[in-house]
Amino acid sequence: MRILSLDPGLERIGFAVLQKEGSRLAALDYGLIETPRIDLPSRLLLIHERLTEIIQTHRPDVAAIEKLLFAVNKTTAMDVAKASGVLILTCRQAGLDVHEITPPEVKQAVVGNGAADKKQVQFMVTKLLALRETPKPDDVADALAIGIAHAFRAPVSSAIGKMGQIGLK
Amino acid sequence: MRILSLDPGLERIGFAVLQKEGSRLAALDYGLIETPRIDLPSRLLLIHERLTEIIQTHRPDVAAIEKLLFAVNKTTAMDVAKASGVLILTCRQAGLDVHEITPPEVKQAVVGNGAADKKQVQFMVTKLLALRETPKPDDVADALAIGIAHAFRAPVSSAIGKMGQIGLK
Repeated sequence: MRILSLDPGLERIGFAVLQKEGSRLAALDYGLIETPRIDLPSRLLLIHERLTEIIQTHRPDVAAIEKLLFAVNKTTAMDVAKASGVLILTCRQAGLDVHEITPPEVKQAVVGNGAADKKQVQFMVTKLLALRETPKPDDVADALAIGIAHAFRAPVSSAIGKMGQIGLK
Repeated sequence: MRILSLDPGLERIGFAVLQKEGSRLAALDYGLIETPRIDLPSRLLLIHERLTEIIQTHRPDVAAIEKLLFAVNKTTAMDVAKASGVLILTCRQAGLDVHEITPPEVKQAVVGNGAADKKQVQFMVTKLLALRETPKPDDVADALAIGIAHAFRAPVSSAIGKMGQIGLK
């Protein structure tokens, strides 16, 4: 399974592409989609175009994106939500299932603690993907963490599904 | 000038297409884009597709969309912002300039009072566009008001631009 994961933003969007084979998980690519300080509609168009390129290059099977929760700066939060809508649409247009995942869910899956701090998450991301150094900036590390969380989550839901079926017999 | 105006939402989006010739303003079309309660990515895709059809049918010159301000229900506000991002992207993809306009700006332009209530706005929308009855639901009346506000605003910015040029001579 190939997972595209996204940490939404307007100025910087972290992305990662992970390959999962059985219990093995590897990072195929990761980086940033960046937009200059131009008008919002043109920034959203750039985000759409850049993400479309990434999808065409890596042909992921599924997308995972951080679900935005309450933010202190409301104006910024609204614009990041608009960019997030564009990311979700772009993945859906490419035929991908899109899963939203909250920051506490990501931390719980990667560190085993929904209130873990950034350094703990980055330590585990580096370790789990056997990276030579901690990925930077935070947006990229977050995107990798979101992808790992989705990879860990998928077999659990599947296993629960199977247990349910066994229980019905 | 043909103006497409949009009142953003996830379940219901009000849209209007206004034609402005000199000081004359007429509503060519107005209505709702509605989405069923399915998963968010599929709703965003439906919104994109329906809006693309409206743009292809009416070939507007410019788009005006209500700018979202702080909302009480944060989860709903985030999802409406995502839909708003999709509306802005879809207009920009079609080559339209997209202008965001706040609710107080709309009320000021249509009623002459930035704190006017919904009934005053609806009364003026009905009067200014010479409609036989008050447009319903509120999302549609709001979309018409946004379009009127943009129509009224455009010549003012243009006149200011010309005054600036004269001032430079």
